[in-house]
This record gives sequence, structure tokens and C-alpha cells, in this order.
Amino acid sequence: MTFRSSIKVRFSDEDHARIVYYPRFFHFFHVAFEDFFDSEGVPYRACLDEGVGWPAVHAEADFQSPVRFGDELEVAVDVERLGRTSATFVYAGSVGGRPAVRGKVVVACLDMSTYRAREIPAKYRAIFERHLVSDDKALPPA
Amino acid sequence: MTFRSSIKVRFSDEDHARIVYYPRFFHFFHVAFEDFFDSEGVPYRACLDEGVGWPAVHAEADFQSPVRFGDELEVAVDVERLGRTSATFVYAGSVGGRPAVRGKVVVACLDMSTYRAREIPAKYRAIFERHLVSDDKALPPA
Amino acid sequence: MTFRSSIKVRFSDEDHARIVYYPRFFHFFHVAFEDFFDSEGVPYRACLDEGVGWPAVHAEADFQSPVRFGDELEVAVDVERLGRTSATFVYAGSVGGRPAVRGKVVVACLDMSTYRAREIPAKYRAIFERHLVSDDKALPPA
Amino acid sequence: MTFRSSIKVRFSDEDHARIVYYPRFFHFFHVAFEDFFDSEGVPYRACLDEGVGWPAVHAEADFQSPVRFGDELEVAVDVERLGRTSATFVYAGSVGGRPAVRGKVVVACLDMSTYRAREIPAKYRAIFERHLVSDDKALPPA
Repeated sequence: MTFRSSIKVRFSDEDHARIVYYPRFFHFFHVAFEDFFDSEGVPYRACLDEGVGWPAVHAEADFQSPVRFGDELEVAVDVERLGRTSATFVYAGSVGGRPAVRGKVVVACLDMSTYRAREIPAKYRAIFERHLVSDDKALPPA
Repeated sequence: MTFRSSIKVRFSDEDHARIVYYPRFFHFFHVAFEDFFDSEGVPYRACLDEGVGWPAVHAEADFQSPVRFGDELEVAVDVERLGRTSATFVYAGSVGGRPAVRGKVVVACLDMSTYRAREIPAKYRAIFERHLVSDDKALPPA
Repeated sequence: MTFRSSIKVRFSDEDHARIVYYPRFFHFFHVAFEDFFDSEGVPYRACLDEGVGWPAVHAEADFQSPVRFGDELEVAVDVERLGRTSATFVYAGSVGGRPAVRGKVVVACLDMSTYRAREIPAKYRAIFERHLVSDDKALPPA
Repeated sequence: MTFRSSIKVRFSDEDHARIVYYPRFFHFFHVAFEDFFDSEGVPYRACLDEGVGWPAVHAEADFQSPVRFGDELEVAVDVERLGRTSATFVYAGSVGGRPAVRGKVVVACLDMSTYRAREIPAKYRAIFERHLVSDDKALPPA
């Protein structure tokens, strides 16, 4: 089950070249990641307050077409891989159906009191599993 | 005694209109504020680690001329007023001698463990006093 | 008539002190300003594409209480003053009814082809007038 | 020949978890990329003004250890691959010798008047070649 978030591209998201500054896409992925938690009834803030954090250990993206101020970026979020202490989220961003960016972020599950990796708690594992792309529709590497 | 900091304006500091996005100037003031502490031998980070914080309670700026990517923004920092629990910093930003922005930020001195206002510690008071503009060269309101 | 915009405070809006980094509030004001145009049926992007820009010439804010990640910032937008070539927008931000920030931004109307001030076009003047606070409920200075 | 840039990590570079917000590293890579051009006597701004742009088509990073406010991030920049119309830059960021982040950004050479790919101009090719990692010290994939 794919989660979808919609992000309004702002005046300040553009850089000198008048297209979205590419590091912003990683910010947009994080925004969609936060929205994903919220949509599952566990606000990301609440998750962190429980002492469970999800720092990125790897991130990558392919920029397919420029995105501009005024665009509405639709971001599709899926879980590509679910490990014991980490998970891989994939993001596909498009504007009006046109593919714009494809990304992948590997997050580790962290005990925020010790800053050490920990097993993904059952509650989050269950959520991630519902969003896991099945083998037959596995995404090619971003 | 005026403290001076130099800030390189970046590709991403511009917005859709291809001039520096105005909220960035408040960020530049904060950068100069951090540099000010560093230059006095008390890194801003160390100050916070001691439990002393300086949140802004008021900020204002006049934007005098556009600043662009590639510019070097020279920021002059002075202390305009020094109270018991707060201080007013004034910033004058220029590019190659041309006035670009003038700002004023009132910061409160905060005990970071309780998040309550506290008296400015003697160490910081002494530093701020050295940068206090004297009456005869007091700046007009920004 | 007050325009209201709602802004979700993000994980990255906080700084080292774990409250919203104060320059972000000026960004939030700009976001609300963009939403204001959109709500009036003239997307801010379209306005700029017509060659009409609104750079800030003055901005100020009072920070009344800390705002944090996970908060929903409600921003009320009014026009406080409407001149021939400039206008003053006032912003009141609150979280769950608690006042958080109060701001004022003076924007000039600019011909984007010449970067010179120009008279506010009738279309925008009409919009701004509908949002002008009447004398009897004029806001005290921020 | 490796180019090295030094970036002061700021109060606002941290997020709610009090470590550098991971999308900021891609910003730091861009800052180092700009500094790289500057150090070669062709300011990045001048390059763009000539109509030659370098949008990212792919970016990736591995986050090796947390970076915090007050840290000085040393970024080593190399050219890993030099094509006809694109180039691959690799970045290795460290704090006091401790590896913090490793990144790779593929940029296309763009004619900014047409927004189409173009051959890398000889002037830039010569610069990139001087920074090309030789085969025997080729970096493993980031």
C-alpha cells in the first residue's frame, strides 16, 4: 500500500537557476516521511518522544525533470526493504503525472537515549509491513 | 568596538526572484552572532553547553538594496543596549561598501535548564560591554 | 477580513535549542503570504509571471512563546496599511490558541522587468482592500 | 589533486534530534562545489553568467557518523568520472579526522539558455581533469 503526500513547492525552494535546489528534494522526502507516520496515527513527534529515532544512514536520488515554484509535488512513499534494525524507504515524486524525482533512504532504528541501533519495535514493524512493496512489484533501484 | 563578519552568499540563498530571500538575512544575522561569540573566545556552542541561551524576543530589519549569489556580505555587529536580562544587537550588512540591510535583534538571556530568563552572566556582560555603541555614536533605530 | 493559513511545523524547523529557529518565522510569514494570494485566485507564481513582485523592504516580529516540531501554527494575515506603491501585512501566529509570534512586513510593489517600484495594480489593490483592517480594529504595532 | 573546503556547522544546521539534518549534507556538498570553482579562479557565479550550468542528475550519500553544531566539517572534493556532457564529483566529509559523510553527485553540463545538455567546455574540462582521481587510487562507490 503506497502512501501519498502532496507538497506545495514554495518561492524559496528555487535557487539561482530558478528550479528546486536539489538538496530540497531530500527535505521533501523527509516531509513525506513525517506525513507517513502522521497518517498512520503515530505522529513522528510522538515516536521520537517515545525514544525511537530514524536517522538516515544512506540516501540517494535521481532527478528526472525540473520542479518549480508553484508546482504541487506528489510524493509516493513505499517501504522497499524491512530489516531487523533498519528499513529502506523509496520515494517517487511527480508533478501532474510527470516523473520528477526518485529517491531511496535507508533509515536505522535508533534508541534515542543511547544513540545505538535497536530492533524495530513491533508497532512500527507492523506499519512498515503494510507499506512493503511485494516482490512481484518490487521497484528497480532508484 | 564593532565586530565584523563576512558571509559568502550562496547559490541557494536566492529565491525565485533571484535575490536573497529576505528571511535569510535574519539567518545571516544569527551566523554573525555566532561568529561574534567565537571571536571572543567563547564559542557559541560552549555557551549553550554551559546552559546559557539567547533566544530572540524581537527582530527587525530594513532591506536597503538587493543582495545576490556571489556577493560577499560584510556584517558589522554592535550592542546597542545592554539590560539586566536582555541585550539588543544591531547588524549592518553591506556589499562592497553599499548598504544592503540593517537589523536589530533583542535577545533574552535564558537558563536553558529551566527555559526562564536569567541575569546575563558577568563573563558575557563584559564582552557585550566592549561592543556597546557609546551614546555619541548611538545608531538611529533600524 | 482576515485570511488564515495553517503551517505544520517540521522536524527540521527546530534548531540546536529544540525550538523553531527564529528566522523560520519570517519564512512562515512568506508561506502564508503565498497562500493568501492563492486563496484569492491569483497564485503568487502567476502574479510574478505577470511581472509584478513584492519584495520586503521592512520586516519585524515579536516572538511570544516557543513553537516546536509537531505544532500546527495558525497564521492570521491582515493588511494594515495600503499605500500607492507599498503595503503592510501583519501576521499573528498561534498554536492551539496560544499567541506565538506577531509580525509585520512592508512590501513594495515592483515591476520585475525594471526592478523599480510601481503603483499597485487595481486587481491587487482590490484584494488587499478586502483584507484591510478597519480603523476601529487597527492592530497595535507588532 | 583533491580540493578541500572547510564548513562551519551552524546552530540551525541541527534538527530536532540535535544532529545535522541529513539533507544539509547535500547542501554542504554544493557549498564545497561552489568553493571548488572559486578556488580555480572561475567563480561559480561567473560560470552561470556565461550560460553554463551544472544541475545534479543523481546524488547519493552515506552518513557515517553524526555531525553537530560547532563542528568544522572538512570536505574533500574529487572528480571520479569525466564524461562528454557530465561529470561525477565525490565528496568525503570529516570532522577532526573522523569520517562523517561520503557522497557522490553526478552533474550534467547544461546550456542555461536552452536548458539542454551540452559538451563540457574545454576550460572546465581542463579544471576537472586536474582533479580526476587516477585509476590506481579510484574511490570505491560511496
